[in-house]
Amino acid sequence: MKLILPSGDTITASPHFSLLDNLKKGGIHIIAPCGGGSGICGRCKVIVKEGPYRTRLKEKLSDQELADGYVVACQTFLKGDLKIEVPPASLLSTEGAVAAGKAEELAESFNSYQVAIQPLTIRVDLELPKPTLTDNVSDTARLKRGLAQIGYAKTNFPYRLMRELARNLREANWSVTVVLVDMDYGKEIVRLRPGAKGEDQGKYGLAVDVGTTTVVVYLVDLLAGRLVDSAATYNYQIIYGEDVISRIIYATDKGGLKELQDIVIDNINNLIESVIDKYSLAEECIDSIVISGNTTMTQLLLGLDPAWIRLEPYIPTANNFPITSAGRLGINVMPDAPLYTMPCVASYVGGDIVAGVLATKMHKSDDLSILIDVGTNGELVIGNSEWLITTACSAGPCFEGGGLKYGMRATQGAIDSVRVNPHTFAAEITVIGGGVPDGVCGSGIIDAIAELFLAGVITPKGQIRTDLGLKNFRSTASGGEYILYQNENKIITITEPDIDNILRAKSAIYAGFKVMLREVGLSFEDISNYYIAGGFGRFLHIDKAIIIGMLPDQPREKFKYFGNTSATGAYLCLLSAQLRREAEDVANKMTYLELSVSRQFMDEYVAGMFLPHTDLAAFPSVAELTAT
Amino acid sequence: MKLILPSGDTITASPHFSLLDNLKKGGIHIIAPCGGGSGICGRCKVIVKEGPYRTRLKEKLSDQELADGYVVACQTFLKGDLKIEVPPASLLSTEGAVAAGKAEELAESFNSYQVAIQPLTIRVDLELPKPTLTDNVSDTARLKRGLAQIGYAKTNFPYRLMRELARNLREANWSVTVVLVDMDYGKEIVRLRPGAKGEDQGKYGLAVDVGTTTVVVYLVDLLAGRLVDSAATYNYQIIYGEDVISRIIYATDKGGLKELQDIVIDNINNLIESVIDKYSLAEECIDSIVISGNTTMTQLLLGLDPAWIRLEPYIPTANNFPITSAGRLGINVMPDAPLYTMPCVASYVGGDIVAGVLATKMHKSDDLSILIDVGTNGELVIGNSEWLITTACSAGPCFEGGGLKYGMRATQGAIDSVRVNPHTFAAEITVIGGGVPDGVCGSGIIDAIAELFLAGVITPKGQIRTDLGLKNFRSTASGGEYILYQNENKIITITEPDIDNILRAKSAIYAGFKVMLREVGLSFEDISNYYIAGGFGRFLHIDKAIIIGMLPDQPREKFKYFGNTSATGAYLCLLSAQLRREAEDVANKMTYLELSVSRQFMDEYVAGMFLPHTDLAAFPSVAELTAT
Repeated sequence: MKLILPSGDTITASPHFSLLDNLKKGGIHIIAPCGGGSGICGRCKVIVKEGPYRTRLKEKLSDQELADGYVVACQTFLKGDLKIEVPPASLLSTEGAVAAGKAEELAESFNSYQVAIQPLTIRVDLELPKPTLTDNVSDTARLKRGLAQIGYAKTNFPYRLMRELARNLREANWSVTVVLVDMDYGKEIVRLRPGAKGEDQGKYGLAVDVGTTTVVVYLVDLLAGRLVDSAATYNYQIIYGEDVISRIIYATDKGGLKELQDIVIDNINNLIESVIDKYSLAEECIDSIVISGNTTMTQLLLGLDPAWIRLEPYIPTANNFPITSAGRLGINVMPDAPLYTMPCVASYVGGDIVAGVLATKMHKSDDLSILIDVGTNGELVIGNSEWLITTACSAGPCFEGGGLKYGMRATQGAIDSVRVNPHTFAAEITVIGGGVPDGVCGSGIIDAIAELFLAGVITPKGQIRTDLGLKNFRSTASGGEYILYQNENKIITITEPDIDNILRAKSAIYAGFKVMLREVGLSFEDISNYYIAGGFGRFLHIDKAIIIGMLPDQPREKFKYFGNTSATGAYLCLLSAQLRREAEDVANKMTYLELSVSRQFMDEYVAGMFLPHTDLAAFPSVAELTAT
Repeated sequence: MKLILPSGDTITASPHFSLLDNLKKGGIHIIAPCGGGSGICGRCKVIVKEGPYRTRLKEKLSDQELADGYVVACQTFLKGDLKIEVPPASLLSTEGAVAAGKAEELAESFNSYQVAIQPLTIRVDLELPKPTLTDNVSDTARLKRGLAQIGYAKTNFPYRLMRELARNLREANWSVTVVLVDMDYGKEIVRLRPGAKGEDQGKYGLAVDVGTTTVVVYLVDLLAGRLVDSAATYNYQIIYGEDVISRIIYATDKGGLKELQDIVIDNINNLIESVIDKYSLAEECIDSIVISGNTTMTQLLLGLDPAWIRLEPYIPTANNFPITSAGRLGINVMPDAPLYTMPCVASYVGGDIVAGVLATKMHKSDDLSILIDVGTNGELVIGNSEWLITTACSAGPCFEGGGLKYGMRATQGAIDSVRVNPHTFAAEITVIGGGVPDGVCGSGIIDAIAELFLAGVITPKGQIRTDLGLKNFRSTASGGEYILYQNENKIITITEPDIDNILRAKSAIYAGFKVMLREVGLSFEDISNYYIAGGFGRFLHIDKAIIIGMLPDQPREKFKYFGNTSATGAYLCLLSAQLRREAEDVANKMTYLELSVSRQFMDEYVAGMFLPHTDLAAFPSVAELTAT
């Protein structure tokens, strides 16, 4: 039996496996947050156009979806040839096209540091003299002597490699490639294989950003120092809660630590599989990994009990993590591939922020900069080459599409920009990848709220006015909704609860700015650069973010949108030993300011719950726009 | 149901378990070289005096044994209460009484070094300040800071301890005991537990001698630096061959490496269980282990492929081994207990010989000494504080009772000394522990051959004269036998093949002496001390060993019998970091001389196949005795 795709491509399929598994075997990876097969999340949707099948779990689908032939792939089994279509939103897609431009950006970022490419592993080719009765040192001693002769003295030799050393050296006829890794305590031998100069095995590395909402994997050519491709999906842990606090509760009070760890590792493995499948690479081609995540994501990934991150005085188990191996965590690459974890700063400022500092280079400049990373949490860093201070303000996941009725990640099918006609109040939208939208991402929702506010559709308190005779309006039990898009069988709206969510989030961020600046005796004017990071979308409109009062009303040229700086920082550290040291310096150097106990922060937060702000004088350019 | 012992003690027993297992549960440990339960070796013999049972494997027992009620314990199941007796030879016994004197000897040996007690683990008590909002470093950083404040900076912190660190620190209310170990690359944290100053947990260590024939475990009080008790048994690997070569062949050609590793670890675990049971200690009381063995035994224990030890140019995988953990090898003590392996010198001079040098202190003296360690192999060391040279000469296991018709280890029931009446040619024997003998050990057989040679019963070529009308003689298909002991149902003899074995062994040792001395341009007279080590028995008679031509005919005061120096050296290294460093220095310093390719050695070996030697002039005192 076979599956026939719209392109005409076919996949040989078995009736004994689910549609999800058949697609996976055929190299098509579907998003399955609950792990696939359990039917918990119902997100692995595909459309059956023609052919016989049996399916379950119809209750996870809307009437419209059922009418359109949607099925839950992990609960569907074919009974003959099927013509199917995978909707873009279901596709755990690599980002080949996107990567082209991104590869240039990343390469530029790396080149600007002017450091050598030094991945986690060091490869050394050795031609050892064969043992004789007069040169009869042990195999271990012979290998160490060979390494010492080319400058690698005192290498640490783990037991697991001793086991087969004698056979391996002889089978390689004493010509071996030794792979070393720099541990805290010195160089350690990772692996040994027959000498093969210049071959490609272990040529690639992975930079992995484990966000609360999104997991991103970059496949990097370690020899060329170049991004090859990337893949991203939701963090499958979201079925256990959208923010870090609910994950911590699940991990601790409910004993789900191992489960959450397994899920995110499965997550990463799915992404890895999708990228290496695409390039027909073997798992053995992946030589090393750098992981970047906030402190909770890092602890969950490493299986470290996160209970006390949540409880005052908010203490993580560790901020610095020794290099471990991919195999130890169950990540499906070369099992002994070293895995480096970006150092964290405190319970609510993690390795992703340290990565962000590296990506923006704010720590190299004499000018004062602010980095604001809006992920599921919001983190701020202020400083320059002399000092860095950091804090976290709970923004919630709405800028990544979380907690919004039609929210989604900034991926194919997301509405990423919105204009509102000031006369008709109708929306003009753009959709990532074009076509019919599946939802709205962070930049889209910011655009929409700013435009609707300017158009007078939304009040400063965030309510949708019902006295304007809006066509793009509908009323529901939970409040009014502004319709962004509608066709005969699809609707995408912004709801009043969505707007409230955004108000809270932007207010937390702005309050963070204010309190931190006051702490160091500075004002917005003193800051030369505002670096914005996060998964809003590729085209965050700074002016719109200022209109809603998320960003301060400063000259537009001070702002720069950096995208996913966590992944960028991981990429930089994957390529350079010096940048890994720099990341550790940055982490150690940062002073952490705890806002959760700050009375000032609460006052500022409440004051920020308006569009753009209760203190309109602080937003003169917005005041001017609304006055017209 | 129950088992009733001659003492009147009873053991609750189940009909579903074998007699062997029932006894084990009752704290009585029986020698079971094949692991117990498989019925391969048939050595776990016990006597059933009364009661119903079913049994198998009678073919492993002699008619006499069957008549006496012997059964193979692992193949016997009770059907009601049984009165049983465990023959001393079957008992995997601890050596309480022996240990008393031995403890003094070992303590003296240690004290003579004038070094501090510094076991593998270092225990540090820490009172950490509780975290607050202003002192909010991570748990790992807090612990490391605490350690740094008392002088342990840069401790390496393994992942496995991070996992539960947060909970452990809080449950201990920030008062913890940290156990550290010195790795090649610096101090590493082994374990962490609630602070408890002065308590006994982890108070004990084990010094383990893994010989080809015998495995010995010393239980040592690490605080007092004192031997508590010891236990010994055959190396269960002997069922796969008596010497290292046959074990290597089994491990490699027959793929039995894992099996041999498992057997010896099972072996060690049985001994550990027997000593800790005796003192009602928990496995957690054992804090660290030092292992001493020849190179092959060491590699088999660590699971390192020994194939190339056997093949020219005879290369071991390693001579120096990083510290590992008992748990990693499956040794049943505290799983994270560090395990130190005595460094080896070459394929046929192992950690047991390095231990022997430490035990004799020959490397501390300006005088020239020779160490001769007669185990299953024979190893020689010549030197002083300036230089050391070493070699190995294949002696075979006969001095440990191996390969002899009635041979046995020097343990309870072994004939350990023999006098032969020069007129009646009758033997007077002494038996270790008294009573009826079970066999003859190394010192007994040396005595017997020397005495029979002097009495003219054995010819210089090793044949038993049949023309003397010997009463203590019997003739069998494989040659003549001299009867050492006989009662109505037991006989112990020395056979002509036994004598031939001893001739080969002693000749190999003497040839080793000669070739090594020639190599360094010295003669027997230049040597001030002859240190003899090995498991002959507690009362090796030096003069008898000279009569058979195993030792050179030198003044008797030059000789000292040291017993099991491998275990002594392991004990010294268990107690002292400085002595561990000294062991490594000794191992590095020793020059290894390969005899297997020496023509000279073969010539000397052939010349030594007489009693005492073809060159009688080299044995003037023996010549004098035989002349009378």
